[in-house]
Amino acid sequence: MPKSAEKKKFIVETQFHTFCEPPNELILKSGEKLGPITLAYESYGTLNADKSNAILICHALSGDAHAAGYHEGDKKPGWWDKMIGPGKAFDTDKYFIVCSNVIGGCKGSTGPASINPNTDKPFGLSFPVITVKDMVAAQKLLIDYLGIKKLLAVTGGSMGGQQVLKWSVAYPEMLHSAIVIATNAKHTAQQIAFNEVARQAIMADPDWLNGNYYGKSVPARGLAVARMIGHITYMSDQSMQEKFGRKLIDKERLGYDFSTDFQVESYLKYRGDSFVHRFDANSWLYISKALDYFDLANGKNLTDVLSQTRAKFLVISFTSDWLYPSYQTKEIVRALKTCGRDVSDIEINTPDGHDAFLVENKGQSTIISHFLENRAKEVAHNE
Amino acid sequence: MPKSAEKKKFIVETQFHTFCEPPNELILKSGEKLGPITLAYESYGTLNADKSNAILICHALSGDAHAAGYHEGDKKPGWWDKMIGPGKAFDTDKYFIVCSNVIGGCKGSTGPASINPNTDKPFGLSFPVITVKDMVAAQKLLIDYLGIKKLLAVTGGSMGGQQVLKWSVAYPEMLHSAIVIATNAKHTAQQIAFNEVARQAIMADPDWLNGNYYGKSVPARGLAVARMIGHITYMSDQSMQEKFGRKLIDKERLGYDFSTDFQVESYLKYRGDSFVHRFDANSWLYISKALDYFDLANGKNLTDVLSQTRAKFLVISFTSDWLYPSYQTKEIVRALKTCGRDVSDIEINTPDGHDAFLVENKGQSTIISHFLENRAKEVAHNE
Repeated sequence: MPKSAEKKKFIVETQFHTFCEPPNELILKSGEKLGPITLAYESYGTLNADKSNAILICHALSGDAHAAGYHEGDKKPGWWDKMIGPGKAFDTDKYFIVCSNVIGGCKGSTGPASINPNTDKPFGLSFPVITVKDMVAAQKLLIDYLGIKKLLAVTGGSMGGQQVLKWSVAYPEMLHSAIVIATNAKHTAQQIAFNEVARQAIMADPDWLNGNYYGKSVPARGLAVARMIGHITYMSDQSMQEKFGRKLIDKERLGYDFSTDFQVESYLKYRGDSFVHRFDANSWLYISKALDYFDLANGKNLTDVLSQTRAKFLVISFTSDWLYPSYQTKEIVRALKTCGRDVSDIEINTPDGHDAFLVENKGQSTIISHFLENRAKEVAHNE
Repeated sequence: MPKSAEKKKFIVETQFHTFCEPPNELILKSGEKLGPITLAYESYGTLNADKSNAILICHALSGDAHAAGYHEGDKKPGWWDKMIGPGKAFDTDKYFIVCSNVIGGCKGSTGPASINPNTDKPFGLSFPVITVKDMVAAQKLLIDYLGIKKLLAVTGGSMGGQQVLKWSVAYPEMLHSAIVIATNAKHTAQQIAFNEVARQAIMADPDWLNGNYYGKSVPARGLAVARMIGHITYMSDQSMQEKFGRKLIDKERLGYDFSTDFQVESYLKYRGDSFVHRFDANSWLYISKALDYFDLANGKNLTDVLSQTRAKFLVISFTSDWLYPSYQTKEIVRALKTCGRDVSDIEINTPDGHDAFLVENKGQSTIISHFLENRAKEVAHNE
């Protein structure tokens, strides 16, 4: 019945808050100042009276504040809708879920496409380089603004997971638990390499104009190539082979030219081209740089750094994720256990590669659901 | 002693042969004709009286005929010099080694930069799409021209390995043995995907001009990005981490800008930029397309297809090669054994990734050396 299906669509709106009262300026890790800051965010579910049921969701490179539900008129829901909603892993009947667009982003939070108040023109490359630490510092302003003293959980996959780790170290008293998915404690050479090639693809596009393309043609070809590179790394050899193999567009024959022969080529082109319409190339540069700069221990001992944390941890990785392989989360788990943290970890068997954290995954949902229930009980018991 | 070191440098010259006598035209797999064909080739060692000691070496995507020795004035030797020479795996004291540039290439063999005799202009994209089968058919012309009836061995890694497989099926009576390294029997979705993104990077470069850039600026930025993508896939996560890790260019600090921070970024840029000076972007398009089109069984049963072979096989793969993973060579080995072929296979433990076949590798050298000695004994015994 279409009507009942329609009923299930919950309509959400992105909210925007500009921090005008001090502290309305962030001193970034680079030493530069950024402010006033606007954050785009969404929330789902109801904050309870003692504000103890709030969960912060941190998004990945190309994500945004729109994690769940539908925007009016949209056909597709938010990026983690499979995990967030009534009866889902992040159960909106029980929890108050918040997700904000990172600074440096292009979906409403202050970023390179925002107007620089000093010049009344878009920042472009005059936007300061931001780090995962800075993203988290901005999120803390939002959580403070919402009057939440302690989050039941902070969670996210990929770059979202790096934010969770940073939250757990930077504001240990502000989170009861941390759900860290498909991520690592520092970007490796291969991860930096993939990001750098994608950045070079963007910067090689003559329409990029050293970042000053706003109001003109966007560097569409470069950004599409960057996205295509990303997509290969998000899937696995196995999932690509199962989905596409050597299937042709035209089932009859190879084209013997440089148009599209294989379905995998057409899929990548589609993903690349459609990305250009929803994402800002400069944001890609800034956010990928933040990923590459991420190094939680930063020359110190990871165990020592993680000993500052107070949260209970759930750490999830995926067998076929070769972009953030399981050995990298295992390093985090070992360090957490070494410093006596309460940590539950699981490597989920799946062919879905790094994308597994975004794809519906019965195992992931159930595990997170139980973990959160237990944390909620602890919080209720402590009161 | 520099003088004795100098002595070891053996100087070689690339030779060129244009096939003017019929058959001087190839009917390509696409159905198009190509000819007259010029092949660039080099040879090392001496062909014995009964022409039974010849080994054909097939190169990979960015390789050429210059496999060993030094060109006059060059500081670097040919691409497989570590494997070819007196006392080396392909021992020039014993064997006569031939290596030719593939058709479609840019180092002297007929390719997209060659003059189209019908227009007196460079072919550009009017050059017909070529396949691995076509490359091998051109090599056969050369072997016939050299008066060699049967090769002691045909060998190559990566695309070179695909050529070896094709040789063994197309001209079974012409090779005594086949050394197949780091390759597969068909390109997978992920391999096609990486090639397609690289092609898109080249074709997105406005200097590409639909392939008609000869005599003008070359599509340097696009080709550099293509090469950078390639380089990541040729190394392994482990080898990149060991070589570069998170080492900075400026040891003091991160730059907090979009110049180069990490050594891995600088390495990739260097490899990308230097490639542009030695390789033609259109050749990259054609040769990568040939790789993607490669499917030895082409819908048939691989075992049935390989049952046409008569050679003895040595199949080598490398543990950390994720571009041509060992499971792919294992499929070839299983099929060869199923149809009763004499096959020796080994997976060499190395962190060097796909590049392992190019890097000096004591294990690889010794195994190939012994394999060839045994084949040479068989040939001598049969006479």
